[in-house]
Amino acid sequence: MYKNLRLLYITTKDLEEARTIGQKLVEQDLAACANILDGMESIYKWKGELQHDQECVLLIKTHYSRVKKVTRMIKDMHSYECPAIISLTITEDEGNQEYLEWLEKTSKQPFEM
Amino acid sequence: MYKNLRLLYITTKDLEEARTIGQKLVEQDLAACANILDGMESIYKWKGELQHDQECVLLIKTHYSRVKKVTRMIKDMHSYECPAIISLTITEDEGNQEYLEWLEKTSKQPFEM
Amino acid sequence: MYKNLRLLYITTKDLEEARTIGQKLVEQDLAACANILDGMESIYKWKGELQHDQECVLLIKTHYSRVKKVTRMIKDMHSYECPAIISLTITEDEGNQEYLEWLEKTSKQPFEM
Repeated sequence: MYKNLRLLYITTKDLEEARTIGQKLVEQDLAACANILDGMESIYKWKGELQHDQECVLLIKTHYSRVKKVTRMIKDMHSYECPAIISLTITEDEGNQEYLEWLEKTSKQPFEM
Repeated sequence: MYKNLRLLYITTKDLEEARTIGQKLVEQDLAACANILDGMESIYKWKGELQHDQECVLLIKTHYSRVKKVTRMIKDMHSYECPAIISLTITEDEGNQEYLEWLEKTSKQPFEM
Repeated sequence: MYKNLRLLYITTKDLEEARTIGQKLVEQDLAACANILDGMESIYKWKGELQHDQECVLLIKTHYSRVKKVTRMIKDMHSYECPAIISLTITEDEGNQEYLEWLEKTSKQPFEM
């Protein structure tokens, strides 16, 4: 049964920001759950200069139907001008089916007439 | 050459549970390796109430032919009624080919006559 | 708009090795950014015996056109004979489009006449 679920990978400036964003998305049923991994170190270039930062990883499990709204909300709440929000497709029909059903039921946008 | 490898993302209640499950899967050649990231914070709803938990992330690299058996074994060993087990497809023909061959050789279910 | 971006998952022997590799890839515009998660515990078999190691996770965001060169460079710099380098495909047209454009612009191999 085709479920169309996503794992979103987001970086935030710190644990507090990850918690605030993750909590808001779960509260509003836009994500089934949020997983936070703190203590991430990032390397990138800014104006041609190498930067090293301390950041936090926020993983969001949600249904495809919510990805646009989730992205908009994260961009609104996030302290960065251009936050990292990338999407990975959860492989269909593998893993714990009851868990995938819970993800779908919790986060899929209800059909509105 | 089509390899059909998977990265499974699992959450456990603590480091000990991740170690026990990861070790069993590797021992029985149902996974080529397990990677554990401790100190994960999760946010979800339970009976309408927001929950914050400390959990652990267990990443399992294995062949597609093992995903069903791995899922059953994790559900049997896991302390949660409905553990998070999701599957990500490893992109074919990219990355270290020798490593992918090792993953395949180590975890693919042998052909039985 | 088709972007062809990848999240590479690499393991290294320690934080220092992850930093050295991540920094080199970003410096040479072979990756847009590197994210490092230290303190990973790995379980695998070596000559039939279970091994437990402390390792480090290095995540690299880059364009498909760079994956082969990135893989070669990591293998050259890495202390392991057969380092784990696996590739996950970033789902097209989802997440923060401005960020995906930045990833593409920063890491895509320039067209050469």
